[in-house]
Amino acid sequence: MKTQYYTATSIDGYLADENNSLDWLFQFGETEEIEGVDEDYSRFIDKVGALAMGSTTYEWIIEHESILEDPEKWPYEVPAWVFSSRELPEIDGADIHFVQGDIVPVHAEMVKAADGKNVWLVGGGDLVCQFHDHGLLDEIILSVAPVTLASGAPLLPRRITTPPLKLASVQKYGDVFAMLTYEVQLASEN
Amino acid sequence: MKTQYYTATSIDGYLADENNSLDWLFQFGETEEIEGVDEDYSRFIDKVGALAMGSTTYEWIIEHESILEDPEKWPYEVPAWVFSSRELPEIDGADIHFVQGDIVPVHAEMVKAADGKNVWLVGGGDLVCQFHDHGLLDEIILSVAPVTLASGAPLLPRRITTPPLKLASVQKYGDVFAMLTYEVQLASEN
Repeated sequence: MKTQYYTATSIDGYLADENNSLDWLFQFGETEEIEGVDEDYSRFIDKVGALAMGSTTYEWIIEHESILEDPEKWPYEVPAWVFSSRELPEIDGADIHFVQGDIVPVHAEMVKAADGKNVWLVGGGDLVCQFHDHGLLDEIILSVAPVTLASGAPLLPRRITTPPLKLASVQKYGDVFAMLTYEVQLASEN
Repeated sequence: MKTQYYTATSIDGYLADENNSLDWLFQFGETEEIEGVDEDYSRFIDKVGALAMGSTTYEWIIEHESILEDPEKWPYEVPAWVFSSRELPEIDGADIHFVQGDIVPVHAEMVKAADGKNVWLVGGGDLVCQFHDHGLLDEIILSVAPVTLASGAPLLPRRITTPPLKLASVQKYGDVFAMLTYEVQLASEN
């Protein structure tokens, strides 16, 4: 069981541009058009048993997919935990837990629900940093899109240098995505 | 002949941290300890016929290598162009041209000096952006170190999304460096 941060990012480490847009990412179309990307996601999601996201990510998904009008469009089958100090719209029939405060007990709850499968941190960067701060982040899997944004929502707004991450694998999908997998090392492992 | 931006960067696109330090990079020691990295640099530098850098990069090299005390430590054999509006210290015996203003005629001069070999843009990001703005940047080669910095000197402070870059190759060196090579596409090529 691992807690994984799996996300798309620009080369310069932004999850979304300064207008909170992902147009720069969606220009590459449906991922199945790029050989191997869809299979990569399938292999990943098959092993996920629970997921977590922040309020901005949740609201972005709801708006982008028009989920309040059609709740069946909620894209995840596994239980989701949404961290927010604000009241957020609920989605009929979706297995979503709205939580706030200390992430440690919530992580324990997610691990229990995942029942041996992995926990996916969908984003954003601030939420993932909190997991890392508590030593609860095991792996970072980046799908690097071939663009630079220069500003926007940061991938991981923390200095992580000591110990550094450990590059586990690199993979090329078409002439578009570089998939980089990093293991998080604890200070005692360095 | 290509104009190439070849540099080390953090995962989140910083060339140096906010204290202008590269300690996070140097923790990985001499690159020859990581199998293949040294050969990669040799293959690259063998094809370089001229190089350019900004004043901050130049001053960093001078200070870091104590070059004013020992001018023979200047690390480059090919002619170098240093872009600066300020007066900078000169290095005895080194083939360095101090220039300012329009980069287009300077690039032409560099290409001529390179005599069929490549032109290397050493950095920083702002200088490289000016070459890109004039359609004079062909390739970006990134040696991505397994760290995040969250702030510092940006790799390439421009939005480059339309057209996107084109991922030419990915390579893994040890459990440390991901080497990503991108081709710059002109708008008409998209």
